[in-house]
Amino acid sequence: MPTVSLDRLRRDLEHVAGYGATASGGVGRTSFSAADRQVRAWLADECAKAGLTLRTDGIGNVFIRVEAPGVPTGTAPVWTGSHLDSVPEGGRFDGALGSLAALEVARRLVEDDVPLRRPVEVVVFVDEEGSYHHLLGSTAITRDFTAGELAEVRGRDGDRLVEALAAMGWDVDAATRTAVRPGDVHAYVELHIEQGSVLETAGARIGVVTAIVGLGGGQLEFRGRQDHAGTTPMPLRRDALRGAGDLLARLPEVARSVSDTAVVTCGILHVEPGGANVVPGLARLQLDFRDPDRERLLQLEEAIVAAAREAAERHDLQVDYTRESITDPVPMDPRLQDLVETTAAAQGMQTLRMASGAGHDAQNMARLAPTGMIFVPSVQGRSHSPAELTAWEDIEAGANVLLAMVHTLATQ
Amino acid sequence: MPTVSLDRLRRDLEHVAGYGATASGGVGRTSFSAADRQVRAWLADECAKAGLTLRTDGIGNVFIRVEAPGVPTGTAPVWTGSHLDSVPEGGRFDGALGSLAALEVARRLVEDDVPLRRPVEVVVFVDEEGSYHHLLGSTAITRDFTAGELAEVRGRDGDRLVEALAAMGWDVDAATRTAVRPGDVHAYVELHIEQGSVLETAGARIGVVTAIVGLGGGQLEFRGRQDHAGTTPMPLRRDALRGAGDLLARLPEVARSVSDTAVVTCGILHVEPGGANVVPGLARLQLDFRDPDRERLLQLEEAIVAAAREAAERHDLQVDYTRESITDPVPMDPRLQDLVETTAAAQGMQTLRMASGAGHDAQNMARLAPTGMIFVPSVQGRSHSPAELTAWEDIEAGANVLLAMVHTLATQ
Repeated sequence: MPTVSLDRLRRDLEHVAGYGATASGGVGRTSFSAADRQVRAWLADECAKAGLTLRTDGIGNVFIRVEAPGVPTGTAPVWTGSHLDSVPEGGRFDGALGSLAALEVARRLVEDDVPLRRPVEVVVFVDEEGSYHHLLGSTAITRDFTAGELAEVRGRDGDRLVEALAAMGWDVDAATRTAVRPGDVHAYVELHIEQGSVLETAGARIGVVTAIVGLGGGQLEFRGRQDHAGTTPMPLRRDALRGAGDLLARLPEVARSVSDTAVVTCGILHVEPGGANVVPGLARLQLDFRDPDRERLLQLEEAIVAAAREAAERHDLQVDYTRESITDPVPMDPRLQDLVETTAAAQGMQTLRMASGAGHDAQNMARLAPTGMIFVPSVQGRSHSPAELTAWEDIEAGANVLLAMVHTLATQ
Repeated sequence: MPTVSLDRLRRDLEHVAGYGATASGGVGRTSFSAADRQVRAWLADECAKAGLTLRTDGIGNVFIRVEAPGVPTGTAPVWTGSHLDSVPEGGRFDGALGSLAALEVARRLVEDDVPLRRPVEVVVFVDEEGSYHHLLGSTAITRDFTAGELAEVRGRDGDRLVEALAAMGWDVDAATRTAVRPGDVHAYVELHIEQGSVLETAGARIGVVTAIVGLGGGQLEFRGRQDHAGTTPMPLRRDALRGAGDLLARLPEVARSVSDTAVVTCGILHVEPGGANVVPGLARLQLDFRDPDRERLLQLEEAIVAAAREAAERHDLQVDYTRESITDPVPMDPRLQDLVETTAAAQGMQTLRMASGAGHDAQNMARLAPTGMIFVPSVQGRSHSPAELTAWEDIEAGANVLLAMVHTLATQ
């Protein structure tokens, strides 16, 4: 059984971090930027050196193919990969780890001339971070965008996606012909940093991803009465912020009442009228809530609204809830979960089954093929930040689990 | 004993509400505005008709004098009044009631030729609402501003006070010679709407103001750790907003632990980084806290900070407090408090002793002379709003208590 070269993988990760390096030590490599072009050129060069063929589809997804000599044409390949784009001020490992570890896996299979029953393809999805469209590349693989849809998509800075594609020198028509049929992929495996601190806290090296969480978004609006901060005694107030505070302090127990995996976050809180000497008449909370199970996600939403109503009643307020979105959870393939676990265990690594709290291209791939994800620890859970860090020994461990899994899937 | 003419007082209040009337039915009569000039002209006209002499000091305070024939020149007068300026979108009664009721008192004393042992002066303070400087006119009566100080004062819109004074046609030098010596005023009495709902709730018609509350301002900053809203389990979070919410919900009991009159308000809450899917790393609360007793005001500040530290500890956060200001409470003269009470009781009105939660020119006058304030109920406590309202029977009651008190003070 071959293993990865950590030296080579480390050299690649450090080199690629130079494309879009920011002053703060992070990486800003948004889709279709100059840094994106540079990393694509570098990748093509590396593939040529390694004798791997690379093609780019109409929307910018990259495929690097390891052939399986002697197997019938059209045998569905095993896919593995991630993305090479980043958020504007991101880290060195998010996406890059899974992409470059997959490249290392491909190089190893070719170098060692490993016999395969199926081809292996490294896939580098375009615009996972959504500079133009969240999970753009993997979405385009599950279904073709229409020309009309593409014409509507604009980037963070307001520029059009179709212009960005044309500037890359690509045929925009080809961007409407990217979908892959379900039978065309045998399985998909992605290695990724956890972006949280669950593995580190548990002392586990490999995370067996059970599902990508479902995500809900909504707004709660507490309404009371705007009053003079000096002339209104405490018992006569209907302070909207009091109700909001009451709920905010209770959110941990609300989440716990539903499951150990449920999370609720209020990251934006708006107060009206917003004067230092005026009792707030309105407090609006933007809520993000998640759970890996759909039923529990809806229970969580109900529990939040019930707690908000109780808080409103305690403080003599009105409260209204508006659901903005519900995205269903995506379970990972049970056999691939087992395969991550047994592969890691065979290599003597401690594993932990856990849901992914963040979105990944794997959630789109799960519609097409059996899909699994391998997590490795993020130091202090830092991600989408220059402070993003994973220990080299964890990177080596994750890449070797990926290699062994791909090998198993391509030879069974 | 004479009584006021409610018809005339009502006509004046309704007429004056037309100077600066806003589309929403409120009043916008900020200092030195066109509406301010109009009301000053109207006042001069009314005084001429009533045989009262009017003078304006260098900064814009207006004095209307009722002579006491036969008493020695220089006998200290009784002062009564309030202000005729308003906040930009204010109501019809804040300031106007005390000013026009004082005018009515002066007219009555002159009409009925009431024998007096002291002169009576109606004073209309300039810029109580602080379009340029909070309590500008009464501050200028307690001490002269220097030319340098005046040159620094700017209005809400950034314009200079000295230019506003010049535009009124006044000599700016005279604005530095406005102070009155302590012995020059025998006593000061001000009638004002409560601007809260204490009297209405208690069913009392006359508020005996015991003190103008002390006012503290400060900032609390809770600091935790910014984290990904999806990948950070609830028990591993250090969510700054959780600590802030915990404190906000406890503020009523914090205030109650100090006194029944203590109030604490958070009207501005800033959250960082302010993304919908990011656990807040920082929450900054702007606090306004008040109590009529200086010792208790400082105890209140301590109790708030102690509660904030407890909340920070419960949620594994850091918290820092920065005091921004402490303005001492100003007690009203005990004999004048008794006089408000006995005068109202003699007229068959139910009274309530209470502190003023808002600031008033009376807090400056209290440094010069024995000072008292009479409150009348505000419907639903509304103030600084077009919804500001006081019942006509309460206005009549308050004005008659004022007349009787001024009579007593000027004849004893």
